[in-house]
Amino acid sequence: MFYNEAMETAPLEKIQDIQWQKLKDMLEKVYRSNRFYQNSFKKHGVALEDIRELSDITKLPFSTKKDFQKDQEDNPVFGTNLTEPFENYVQFHQTTGTTGKPLKWLDTKESWAWRARCMAHSLAAAGITNKDILLLPFNFGPYTAFWGVYEAAQHLDVLTIPTGGWTTEQRLQSVIENQATVIIGTPTYMLRLAEAAQEEGLDLPGSAIRVVILAGEPGAMIPSVRDKLERGWGARVFEYPGLTETGTYAFMCEHNNQALHIIESEFIVEVLDSTTGKSVADGEAGELVLTNLGRSCSPAIRYRTNDRVRLIKSSCSCGRTFGQLIGGVLGRQDEMLIVRGVNIFPSTMGNIVEKFMELGCEYQIIAFRQGDMDEVRLKIEVTPTSQDVDKLIVPELKKQLNLRVDIEKVPKGTLVRSDYKGKKFIDERGKR
Amino acid sequence: MFYNEAMETAPLEKIQDIQWQKLKDMLEKVYRSNRFYQNSFKKHGVALEDIRELSDITKLPFSTKKDFQKDQEDNPVFGTNLTEPFENYVQFHQTTGTTGKPLKWLDTKESWAWRARCMAHSLAAAGITNKDILLLPFNFGPYTAFWGVYEAAQHLDVLTIPTGGWTTEQRLQSVIENQATVIIGTPTYMLRLAEAAQEEGLDLPGSAIRVVILAGEPGAMIPSVRDKLERGWGARVFEYPGLTETGTYAFMCEHNNQALHIIESEFIVEVLDSTTGKSVADGEAGELVLTNLGRSCSPAIRYRTNDRVRLIKSSCSCGRTFGQLIGGVLGRQDEMLIVRGVNIFPSTMGNIVEKFMELGCEYQIIAFRQGDMDEVRLKIEVTPTSQDVDKLIVPELKKQLNLRVDIEKVPKGTLVRSDYKGKKFIDERGKR
Repeated sequence: MFYNEAMETAPLEKIQDIQWQKLKDMLEKVYRSNRFYQNSFKKHGVALEDIRELSDITKLPFSTKKDFQKDQEDNPVFGTNLTEPFENYVQFHQTTGTTGKPLKWLDTKESWAWRARCMAHSLAAAGITNKDILLLPFNFGPYTAFWGVYEAAQHLDVLTIPTGGWTTEQRLQSVIENQATVIIGTPTYMLRLAEAAQEEGLDLPGSAIRVVILAGEPGAMIPSVRDKLERGWGARVFEYPGLTETGTYAFMCEHNNQALHIIESEFIVEVLDSTTGKSVADGEAGELVLTNLGRSCSPAIRYRTNDRVRLIKSSCSCGRTFGQLIGGVLGRQDEMLIVRGVNIFPSTMGNIVEKFMELGCEYQIIAFRQGDMDEVRLKIEVTPTSQDVDKLIVPELKKQLNLRVDIEKVPKGTLVRSDYKGKKFIDERGKR
Repeated sequence: MFYNEAMETAPLEKIQDIQWQKLKDMLEKVYRSNRFYQNSFKKHGVALEDIRELSDITKLPFSTKKDFQKDQEDNPVFGTNLTEPFENYVQFHQTTGTTGKPLKWLDTKESWAWRARCMAHSLAAAGITNKDILLLPFNFGPYTAFWGVYEAAQHLDVLTIPTGGWTTEQRLQSVIENQATVIIGTPTYMLRLAEAAQEEGLDLPGSAIRVVILAGEPGAMIPSVRDKLERGWGARVFEYPGLTETGTYAFMCEHNNQALHIIESEFIVEVLDSTTGKSVADGEAGELVLTNLGRSCSPAIRYRTNDRVRLIKSSCSCGRTFGQLIGGVLGRQDEMLIVRGVNIFPSTMGNIVEKFMELGCEYQIIAFRQGDMDEVRLKIEVTPTSQDVDKLIVPELKKQLNLRVDIEKVPKGTLVRSDYKGKKFIDERGKR
């Protein structure tokens, strides 16, 4: 299902026209009254007149999380990435703070509606309509992701059941009692709910839930995770990626569970070599750089997401012409390890480990420094009846990544759980 | 400040015209396709043609919480008080379940926007504008009150900071760090936040907070509670009442902290003798009966709220012509005790007790049966340095209510705390 069929299936040239119009409009506003970008552009010597066509975007400097963090520190409370008068802002969100001090981000009514429309692409593409009942199993903190889902659901006239402050058990009860058809959460928490249902003898696969949507972490494209979720819920699993700084920028369609479609009518996407800052070839892995086009009040322009992706331009069998991220978000660019000369991303390693983990068991990948070298250790939870998964994981990692790791088995329930994002990668390389 | 000055200061006749137009429109829809009211009106033999003018509303039967509960039990999941096709409903809420099985209530986009406008009266009357920063210290569960505040704030372009899932300490930190100017919560939780700030040495009275709005329980019109909150927060205290079943129906203005203004342009208000069902005289205490006029999708028509109020029709010095509830909601109609021949409402007794309680101490009024007679006991928390409050409370209750009670002193922290509504009245009269 489409949210906006004409746009989603438009030829590349049309999309580029739209991108150029929106970029130009945004830059005019930003050059006029956004201190953050005024300073940045001036420092890099780029005048508005230098940007004459879409491809000129590469003349603009990058922005990074660190830039915004420093700006907010220097200009409290909300920094200078504010194009409009303060009274116009109605939404406050902040990042979770996994990488430094939480970054605050404000939206106006217009940009917030734009964010809801971006997210609506995701819900529509998963086949959600106004006949659905969407249960929202989270507390609605200052994090943006789930608020966006709520707003998009309202935009699409979907009945929402909010369950902030409730326990896992109360939420499962509400799923069953109210015959909810769709649920949204992190893969970690969706697995936790499925596990709790099993423990309580609740028949989730027999419930009305037909779609599970994942957010916050990759999950739907990791076959073993998807498989566990599809069996645990008896439902199709979708996912969408998004960042506080950029909004929801892509979604999964019903035809392909191995790619995310970038919302190119609302975003300009680049994939770069992190070191050189140059574009990589179509299909090559690199760092995702995004420019959002509907949020001139507090835009992200050439924002380095730190996310590793592979972009291809070819269209999907669903009919959409938007570029696709193959395999979704592959991991964090700055998490790369060099273990005995081999480049390893913890996420790649995690995807292999996932295959051997039972529902309800957790694992952690711990990176540390030995001399000048990166090393890696794996902690996995097992139950008394688990098979000897370590004997299976070790050869698989050796085979697929040419990587030999130490494995530590711990009893189920030992590792920290979260109702939000799981902490699967522990980076101790900075420690002395 | 007004939300809609023309309406709020309109002469009685104009308001009655509006009420009649809205009632007529609603009844036409309800007679056409609302099974709940179709059945109820038929059972009471009232045809649409019988309602020819505003005063004919008294020909319509009452509705009660029990009626709706039974309807949802007989017609799962959502009952038959649904005037429109299911696809039109976008909002699910339910009551907290303090009086029986939680009642579910659905809204359409239109009725939800109506509810936000009702709540907007409340925010505007407390002087809140788009220059304010409103911190929302709750989890956004399925309860309606705080969602209504969120929507009203968005409607008025007020910047909101949601803090679901956060601790009391994180919320206080966010108040200070983000220079929030307004905060909303139950009196119980607002007192708890003020207490926690004192414990942590945070200067709340020196913060940017200038308005505290109370909901969920009466508080602003109990002088000792208001006083504690005003000192703890260094802010003005307002309150508004509302029910899941009816929406926000009244608000407090800046000119009078001893009354709530009924939103008469959106509600028809009656005050009745609970036993006879007849109107009481202007200014007499009775049960509040409400009909909401902007929610034809799932209306409350002549809904017996069980709330005890005193209504006067005279206008306020703020210029509003809406009827006023003197002293706000005085308590629950069905909580009345007859102790040695004297009629006592726990809320009245609570207001007297409050005067003697320190910030952070709780109390409970426990009603029980002795033979055929109601009896009452009071549990109060004290600190080692408290004065002998029991010696002060006993004569005060005797003097004001002609009531002699047993008092049990317990250490501070003994009684159950809640982040939501406090449980101050424990009714054990039904127990054997």
